[in-house]
Amino acid sequence: MSANSFGTLFRVTTWGESHGPALGCVVDGVPPRLPLDEAAIQRWLDRRRPGQSRFTTQRREPDQVRILSGTFEGQTTGTPIQLLIENVDQRSKDYSEIARTFRPGHADLAYWAKYGIRDYRGGGRSSARETAARVAAGGVARLVLGPDVTIRGALVQVGPHRIDRARWDWAEVERNPFWCPDPEMVPVWERHIDELRRAGDSTGAVIEVVASGMPMGLGAPIYGKLDAELAAAMMSINAVKGVEIGDGFAAAEATGSAHADEMRARPAPPGSNTPAGIDFLSNHAGGVLGGISTGQDLIVRFAVKPTSSITTPRRSVDIDGRDIDVATKGRHDPCVGLRAVPVGEAMAACVLADQLLRHRGQVGEPARFPRSD
Amino acid sequence: MSANSFGTLFRVTTWGESHGPALGCVVDGVPPRLPLDEAAIQRWLDRRRPGQSRFTTQRREPDQVRILSGTFEGQTTGTPIQLLIENVDQRSKDYSEIARTFRPGHADLAYWAKYGIRDYRGGGRSSARETAARVAAGGVARLVLGPDVTIRGALVQVGPHRIDRARWDWAEVERNPFWCPDPEMVPVWERHIDELRRAGDSTGAVIEVVASGMPMGLGAPIYGKLDAELAAAMMSINAVKGVEIGDGFAAAEATGSAHADEMRARPAPPGSNTPAGIDFLSNHAGGVLGGISTGQDLIVRFAVKPTSSITTPRRSVDIDGRDIDVATKGRHDPCVGLRAVPVGEAMAACVLADQLLRHRGQVGEPARFPRSD
Amino acid sequence: MSANSFGTLFRVTTWGESHGPALGCVVDGVPPRLPLDEAAIQRWLDRRRPGQSRFTTQRREPDQVRILSGTFEGQTTGTPIQLLIENVDQRSKDYSEIARTFRPGHADLAYWAKYGIRDYRGGGRSSARETAARVAAGGVARLVLGPDVTIRGALVQVGPHRIDRARWDWAEVERNPFWCPDPEMVPVWERHIDELRRAGDSTGAVIEVVASGMPMGLGAPIYGKLDAELAAAMMSINAVKGVEIGDGFAAAEATGSAHADEMRARPAPPGSNTPAGIDFLSNHAGGVLGGISTGQDLIVRFAVKPTSSITTPRRSVDIDGRDIDVATKGRHDPCVGLRAVPVGEAMAACVLADQLLRHRGQVGEPARFPRSD
Amino acid sequence: MSANSFGTLFRVTTWGESHGPALGCVVDGVPPRLPLDEAAIQRWLDRRRPGQSRFTTQRREPDQVRILSGTFEGQTTGTPIQLLIENVDQRSKDYSEIARTFRPGHADLAYWAKYGIRDYRGGGRSSARETAARVAAGGVARLVLGPDVTIRGALVQVGPHRIDRARWDWAEVERNPFWCPDPEMVPVWERHIDELRRAGDSTGAVIEVVASGMPMGLGAPIYGKLDAELAAAMMSINAVKGVEIGDGFAAAEATGSAHADEMRARPAPPGSNTPAGIDFLSNHAGGVLGGISTGQDLIVRFAVKPTSSITTPRRSVDIDGRDIDVATKGRHDPCVGLRAVPVGEAMAACVLADQLLRHRGQVGEPARFPRSD
Repeated sequence: MSANSFGTLFRVTTWGESHGPALGCVVDGVPPRLPLDEAAIQRWLDRRRPGQSRFTTQRREPDQVRILSGTFEGQTTGTPIQLLIENVDQRSKDYSEIARTFRPGHADLAYWAKYGIRDYRGGGRSSARETAARVAAGGVARLVLGPDVTIRGALVQVGPHRIDRARWDWAEVERNPFWCPDPEMVPVWERHIDELRRAGDSTGAVIEVVASGMPMGLGAPIYGKLDAELAAAMMSINAVKGVEIGDGFAAAEATGSAHADEMRARPAPPGSNTPAGIDFLSNHAGGVLGGISTGQDLIVRFAVKPTSSITTPRRSVDIDGRDIDVATKGRHDPCVGLRAVPVGEAMAACVLADQLLRHRGQVGEPARFPRSD
Repeated sequence: MSANSFGTLFRVTTWGESHGPALGCVVDGVPPRLPLDEAAIQRWLDRRRPGQSRFTTQRREPDQVRILSGTFEGQTTGTPIQLLIENVDQRSKDYSEIARTFRPGHADLAYWAKYGIRDYRGGGRSSARETAARVAAGGVARLVLGPDVTIRGALVQVGPHRIDRARWDWAEVERNPFWCPDPEMVPVWERHIDELRRAGDSTGAVIEVVASGMPMGLGAPIYGKLDAELAAAMMSINAVKGVEIGDGFAAAEATGSAHADEMRARPAPPGSNTPAGIDFLSNHAGGVLGGISTGQDLIVRFAVKPTSSITTPRRSVDIDGRDIDVATKGRHDPCVGLRAVPVGEAMAACVLADQLLRHRGQVGEPARFPRSD
Repeated sequence: MSANSFGTLFRVTTWGESHGPALGCVVDGVPPRLPLDEAAIQRWLDRRRPGQSRFTTQRREPDQVRILSGTFEGQTTGTPIQLLIENVDQRSKDYSEIARTFRPGHADLAYWAKYGIRDYRGGGRSSARETAARVAAGGVARLVLGPDVTIRGALVQVGPHRIDRARWDWAEVERNPFWCPDPEMVPVWERHIDELRRAGDSTGAVIEVVASGMPMGLGAPIYGKLDAELAAAMMSINAVKGVEIGDGFAAAEATGSAHADEMRARPAPPGSNTPAGIDFLSNHAGGVLGGISTGQDLIVRFAVKPTSSITTPRRSVDIDGRDIDVATKGRHDPCVGLRAVPVGEAMAACVLADQLLRHRGQVGEPARFPRSD
Repeated sequence: MSANSFGTLFRVTTWGESHGPALGCVVDGVPPRLPLDEAAIQRWLDRRRPGQSRFTTQRREPDQVRILSGTFEGQTTGTPIQLLIENVDQRSKDYSEIARTFRPGHADLAYWAKYGIRDYRGGGRSSARETAARVAAGGVARLVLGPDVTIRGALVQVGPHRIDRARWDWAEVERNPFWCPDPEMVPVWERHIDELRRAGDSTGAVIEVVASGMPMGLGAPIYGKLDAELAAAMMSINAVKGVEIGDGFAAAEATGSAHADEMRARPAPPGSNTPAGIDFLSNHAGGVLGGISTGQDLIVRFAVKPTSSITTPRRSVDIDGRDIDVATKGRHDPCVGLRAVPVGEAMAACVLADQLLRHRGQVGEPARFPRSD
């Protein structure tokens, strides 16, 4: 696949660097006659925007999106949609040092080893700035999925501190700067992140994304499996080191009898003798079996490593192979995971939109259970 | 991407069902003039073959591979290579029951919901039989990678029992039926799996695959990242529910100062003042930064859920939506993870071969550190 | 795109060489629950089979197709369909001469220049044998298109002799060995080809393929245009040097007023005041405007060069760069265009099937004119 | 393939409509460290710019290109290159009539039939404006191909008037507004086009593109053949109805003995006994055999139909199915082929750049003849 594109029918190609004039994406394959204006995309970008609390980078970017093509009189036309976001707050600073050094844990070394050149200003292409384009594309993907599918994300772990799932409250997620669904965990994370920030250090985190109202049958076995494409999508987000579907690694400890999600028929509505559907008695699978959606909530989690740009000095080398110590100045996130929540939602939306269109192409509209045909 | 293909330049398309006459794959994009005969592929298939111990399904398949195209006088020609494996031991049995029921945790329901038809004999396309074709393709991929890159896998966890990494011994992996690198863990797993088998139950497991001798620079940011493609490849293997690169989910608990892999220049060889390369002082990243290989060992882990086909009855529904109980008869793996090790190795080999060819195409041969240009 | 695959949702990957044990293709993305057995494909292969008259190669190949996967109880399952055709009549002969020489006009030199190795037996991968796999895939594509779309081909020119379109008779095409729709042209071509065969020479030809019953709206602007994909498909057939849609090159001589296909509304059926559709007063466009089907007959023509394997000696060089003369022995077609007719039909069917599935995916079922929405 | 992208490793995605705020393209897969600035691309756009003579549309577009990503300090970085061109001269006019009518021979009907909505202002996505983005991408492709490969185009036929190839002079092409290589044909075309323009009519044309300095071995059989991809690329240009490689349709009239391009070894340089290469004694093949470049000049021709937007009234229907007459007002090209020359060059450059990178990926650097290995 093209290195900067993903999706087959619903296809997103992003472009742009942290300190270039702009960044954006082309969204191709969008069905025609969907209502689309800039506000419909801006609402998602606003949720991701940096500098909204002291817990994220203080870089101030309005992240105003412009639609340059693919719509006419407020509707999509079926032609490619170009979404453009200007970079506004690229501080002019002295990059002479960073230009010749590699931050441990950062993509500096890798880009340079691959290409022999890198735009080191703010991380260039490897900057989390690129994810703004993903969030914009995700806004279009949500239109394709329609109102029945809801995609929400939350932070479930910061450093060693995990939420209590018994206290999960989606409303709480919108009330705190941590996307935390557990009210009692908010002060704990706040204290933890403040300490790390003051210490010039950073922390990792775990994000969970849930898609509700899923149709059955989305997913393209064997290599276009829904969970496989979600895994690639999440792992392609900056700093992600692990992905889980449903129980994930906990499934390795389980027995088959405990892990299997048992089923019962949902009682037929009055006056009908056809069951209304399937009731699953658990969701260890996370809504995917054999790479295909079952209609249960789709559950994906991913682990984000701690920000590699920290002010604590680390041992490294420079581009000439000389030993040096590196301490990164500038504006950084003590927990980059905080900004990954809307990105994870957007990636899930794009993968689902593409799978929906591919399913329609090969099979037709997703079927209900039990099938009438 | 096509549902049954993966890779861009080194591209594998698999086909075939559990109880059809044969299965196999087309491997396209293989460089010309590589030495290739059936023995070079058979050696990898033999490692995967079922029925070699009481711990895997007793289905007896010789898994003899035939090369039907793409080679001439023992060398690859650059044209597509068709690898064919006949199915031999498809027991004729009564499928009338399984034809109308859905095993909890199995792909039965999902395939049927998607396509409205399914080959239920032995799981059809969703059977682990399909992975034989992947292992065959992996044998070709290893030729493309050449002798400097070594790809090995091991089982590191069965149910609740994890190996002790301090006792890791690659030689031990070849000596026991569990691909276990920890001699003291072998009897523990043996006891555990025997108990589950007798109880008509099954267990999950965790596999780790390590690629050594990696060149720097493999990986295609942003969406063709090496780790993203590995995540998709592993998640596409039957029953996989989670994937980790390097520290994986443990990175969520770490601080940036602890997680960063520090570096020192490898001393210059006598008579030279150019460093021989980089020495990393740790490998939390698992050999990938920014989606690009750093030259460290590439480390990927994946979690396999317990086999869903068990003789313990579970609650379910049939295709008409009637409540039923399901207990699966027939030959099954108490720990399907046991057979996933060669599959994980093969998927890693295919992803790396494709990334190597793509890197050559865009950039040229991978560079050394420090770069001379 | 992968070198040996074409199509996006309906995707065909062919493999095999002229003198290998077998050849075939994987057809991926086929909708489920279509009736498919070997007879449904064999009927198309039989039309292409060589050795059916003295005007084609005397190589005797039964071209019996076997379905190895992707069907269950006579229906497609949505999984990849492997079609296999064994090579039977590979004469053992002395290839020592051809192994070191390049036939002028033949792919010998090009394959060798590209790969540094070639299977020279019968042309290896560049042999027209490969087209058997395309014809098999085309049989599946016709099922996807359904009974309303009819795809037929005919030979319209052999050397300097063009048919008279006023005498076009589709029934005649099945009555003569030349796929000739003009009864009066048959004896002319017969005499012409016999003379060339006796002279150890060959001739070019022009094939026309017509698809009737086309829906409106198939085609994916800008680069997946229906006519662009047809052009690639036809040009990928052995020995093809030119492709035309509708008037083709004659359009270069036309004026806009003469070339434009005027339209009139088709009168509304009794009791309705909605027109039944559009009547075009001509079809210079060949059924495609802006890369999208208009519902008129789709008309594509392609030129096939004369067979390059002839017994008349030609000047050439060998692989060491020595000047030589080459005269090709063995069984050859005096007019390879004769066998290209079913191949052209098959390629058109595959392109249309893929475009139909992609249109369904992005837009839904093709609409009628005038649109009700 | 994605509808608005082409290429595999060197991949171009265009976006934008005739009367939107801007149009452009993303060029992905460009090798790093190539010198690239806006001037290097602008020079090609300037050749295509409309309104430079009375023979093309009088719409005034500066077509100033901006590079928004993918370069750093004047060099490519290996990341995607966004090229943006603003639309400046979109006359505000009354579109109420065109909004409801279909111009015969125009894409109006097809887009509307496919999508149920269309941006009718200036043809929207189907406007020749889109080709500006292709020309910009072609400028990048030429950098990838390097200085040894020269790609030039010329007009060889306007209406019934063909050039005399004996008078072919590349220098003349730059001296007249018709890209005409035959000085004596210039006044003939000038008269012909002026007459048509005054008559409110238009004419078709034939363009020829020649690539010199070609390496051997470019092309990916079977379906990624160099000529097949060129055919798709040219047929994807607005109004193109036919494509030829080398002799094209004339090959249908030829005999094998006459069509075969004979070869002789190029004498060895002094002091060597290895031939310097191959001398072809003719070029009927147009530089491609078996879909792979032979090192001869690559020759591709394509036919452009007459502009469908003419002021002469034509019979048509409106979106409600009512019979109407259509005469198009506004600024139009009497011979749209005039502006297709730089577009054809650009498409050839993009196809060759992609094939070069793919060849390097699978095989390595193109080899010389005779091969040393």
